[in-house]
Amino acid sequence: MESYDVIVIGAGPGGYVAAIHAAQLGASVAIVEGRAVGGTCLNRGCVPTKALLHVASTVNELSAAENYGVQASHIDLDFDKITEYKNMVVETQTKGVAGLLKANGVESYHGYAQIQDQKKVLVDLEDGSQLELSATKGIVIATGSEPNIIPLEGVEFTLTSDDLLEGYVDNFESITIVGGGVIGVEMASYYASMGVSTTLLQGANRILPRMDKDASSITTQNLKKLGARVVTEARVKHFEQSEEGVVTVYDDKKGEEQRVLSEEVLLAIGRKAYTKGLFADGFELEMERGAIVIDKDFKTSVDGVYAIGDVIFGSVQLAHVASFQGEHAVEAILLDKAHERALELVPSVIYTSPEVSSVGLSEDEAKAAGYELMVGKYLMNGNCRTVIAQAGRGYIKTIFDKETERLLGVSMVAVNASEIMNEASNAIANKLTYSDLLKAMRPHPSFGEGFTEAILAAKGEAIHMAPPKK
Amino acid sequence: MESYDVIVIGAGPGGYVAAIHAAQLGASVAIVEGRAVGGTCLNRGCVPTKALLHVASTVNELSAAENYGVQASHIDLDFDKITEYKNMVVETQTKGVAGLLKANGVESYHGYAQIQDQKKVLVDLEDGSQLELSATKGIVIATGSEPNIIPLEGVEFTLTSDDLLEGYVDNFESITIVGGGVIGVEMASYYASMGVSTTLLQGANRILPRMDKDASSITTQNLKKLGARVVTEARVKHFEQSEEGVVTVYDDKKGEEQRVLSEEVLLAIGRKAYTKGLFADGFELEMERGAIVIDKDFKTSVDGVYAIGDVIFGSVQLAHVASFQGEHAVEAILLDKAHERALELVPSVIYTSPEVSSVGLSEDEAKAAGYELMVGKYLMNGNCRTVIAQAGRGYIKTIFDKETERLLGVSMVAVNASEIMNEASNAIANKLTYSDLLKAMRPHPSFGEGFTEAILAAKGEAIHMAPPKK
Repeated sequence: MESYDVIVIGAGPGGYVAAIHAAQLGASVAIVEGRAVGGTCLNRGCVPTKALLHVASTVNELSAAENYGVQASHIDLDFDKITEYKNMVVETQTKGVAGLLKANGVESYHGYAQIQDQKKVLVDLEDGSQLELSATKGIVIATGSEPNIIPLEGVEFTLTSDDLLEGYVDNFESITIVGGGVIGVEMASYYASMGVSTTLLQGANRILPRMDKDASSITTQNLKKLGARVVTEARVKHFEQSEEGVVTVYDDKKGEEQRVLSEEVLLAIGRKAYTKGLFADGFELEMERGAIVIDKDFKTSVDGVYAIGDVIFGSVQLAHVASFQGEHAVEAILLDKAHERALELVPSVIYTSPEVSSVGLSEDEAKAAGYELMVGKYLMNGNCRTVIAQAGRGYIKTIFDKETERLLGVSMVAVNASEIMNEASNAIANKLTYSDLLKAMRPHPSFGEGFTEAILAAKGEAIHMAPPKK
Repeated sequence: MESYDVIVIGAGPGGYVAAIHAAQLGASVAIVEGRAVGGTCLNRGCVPTKALLHVASTVNELSAAENYGVQASHIDLDFDKITEYKNMVVETQTKGVAGLLKANGVESYHGYAQIQDQKKVLVDLEDGSQLELSATKGIVIATGSEPNIIPLEGVEFTLTSDDLLEGYVDNFESITIVGGGVIGVEMASYYASMGVSTTLLQGANRILPRMDKDASSITTQNLKKLGARVVTEARVKHFEQSEEGVVTVYDDKKGEEQRVLSEEVLLAIGRKAYTKGLFADGFELEMERGAIVIDKDFKTSVDGVYAIGDVIFGSVQLAHVASFQGEHAVEAILLDKAHERALELVPSVIYTSPEVSSVGLSEDEAKAAGYELMVGKYLMNGNCRTVIAQAGRGYIKTIFDKETERLLGVSMVAVNASEIMNEASNAIANKLTYSDLLKAMRPHPSFGEGFTEAILAAKGEAIHMAPPKK
């Protein structure tokens, strides 16, 4: 039986980061992964999605480029090459991760792990043999999640993001996307950009229900501008296979039955914790709705066994969250005191065009928490780079506590939101105030200048906005 | 004689921001501008340059797009439309500024100002009449700068950035650019991208001599990849008009005379303070090499007279610097105490592809200032978004004081550097440390994740880099 300080189960962005960081801290580390290194994120999640969205953004850029004098007479989309490119991006990243694990001295086992007890993991190796590993200091569960499937009639005729993102990139005449969360909206943005007739069906009364309301409404408009049809309050009832494709049958907001036919249907209704085969008979952890319950250090109900990322109960299912938790968890295992991290402060990004992002408290959440607020909102159509990029509608909103003038939250729809958000996260984590945020210049021209204006707007002091009425 | 609390001379990004901010603070404000509102930045500087670079980036994207399956069979560049677009961008901004001045109650005078004494300004109006204005609290000089001209034989055959950026966007067969600073490098990037045979002649031994050495060398490579010829240690001697264009005669690094023929020559050898006609006979200010000397509050040697932006001695000639100084100067005039601003901390960006940027101390400057350093460097080819964008070579470098672990400076070549830099500026201005900078997550995937790695690399703790050898 091989013995390690730390055994990590799952080599996605939670697991591989945890393993590398544990090795950095001097531990002997094994990582066990049954599928490809890199997990959902690299193989069938963020990474291939963003590769496809990069293709889509070029296609959009091309049609916009006529307005500024760059005219392409004919555009051909070559799906062999798109697939090749998407696979190249994925392989570059997964090979990179495999190399990093090796360079850090982490032992990789290709197989499926089963936890026998708080110190022991059994691995079913590829060749059919079994191997027992023991963990002297801790086991980290990072097995991630899989797409949710609704038990509706005809659901077998639908696809999940796994089907669309792994393997060949198919093009369709038409697609219906069930679910208006992050995945549904990003895929709708991709397909609509690629000229696919796209219908997005959302059960709630707005898409992106976890984001600021303004983000929902602007993103709805931006999707419609790309040609997508967005239907909210759609209660999907069942699916039917027909000769021309799949019919999605749903009740609209008036309760009237509607039918939409499309070549394919994507189910994008969230993801659920993946723990299949993970626990040996007799080994039990506290679970909640199929996910693992953890404490503030990501320790499960069993001493020495930790869990991070999509598999834990109540976590925001994002790669950077899993990575951050992974670093914290191995520090909790190996050090007297983990480094200070704002673990609850999750910047989330939807990679539409422009991007949508939020971090910290929304206006509603901050009010509910009892804060009196100063709120600043800047419309990005006044931002120079936004005019240059001829980007769709956008805004940046800042939410400050009126008493302390500390920044509590930021939400935005803006080109490069995924970059602008870094400063906002950092500022909230470091408890920066209105005044602190105005100490430094922001380069001109940048999309991030809009952040300065949104800060200033919280006190009616924005320069590039009409002054507040007195 | 009209009387105002504050008179601002020049409506560029220094002047118009100063005027709006003074009005926000309750002052009555006049602004005097002889040319178009918006100054160099909006009319013949950053803004039209970035519009052209946006066109160029689309052209580059198109040729790269073949690699990921988007094939445009024939690309036409329509310079009427490019000009129209560039002018639209400029007009949107200048009209916006004019509207903001009005909305804030700032009185705009279209004419040239002459300072009579510390309280009095004479304006030569467009219609030939004159008007006297008096300033009860302060005058702010924000007259900006104009391109430097070297007194070499044949210099009349060359163009400046004013000629290229105002009016019609011409296309050339070939161009020689004299000067490898910000303007020269950005224009070389534009022309090379547009298929113009481009030669960049730089006197110093590297382009972008004020930036980190790595930034120079990577940008040189990236320009060469676009097809530009980059010649350093070129001592330009004179210019000759020929039937085919203009010949630039220079000595190369071996002292051998070289001749390069091109359709046009751009002189991009910096800018000098512009004060022509500004001072009435008998009114004098302390000047140094043609620029106005100011104190820490931007007050000149004459009480009540302030100066900001490109016209002052020793300033970094950038729009956001002028704006920031403008806000400070009017606070110094109107308030007991100006808001705390990191006035010396200038993020600068060169909008090549990828962008080049730096803020705070360079490695050499920090060493010279006596700091013992921790330096982190991350190569962007390991960054997921960089792989997706198939961007050119890049890196992010962090410079920390070893003793306090405070961030002192950041330099980078990276897609979206102009956005990533905001967080770096903010962090330096707020004296954040290594540990502070690791409190918050950065979204995945983003170019800004490279900043996390560059921070961690300063202690050999980067996750996505091979571990340091022990």
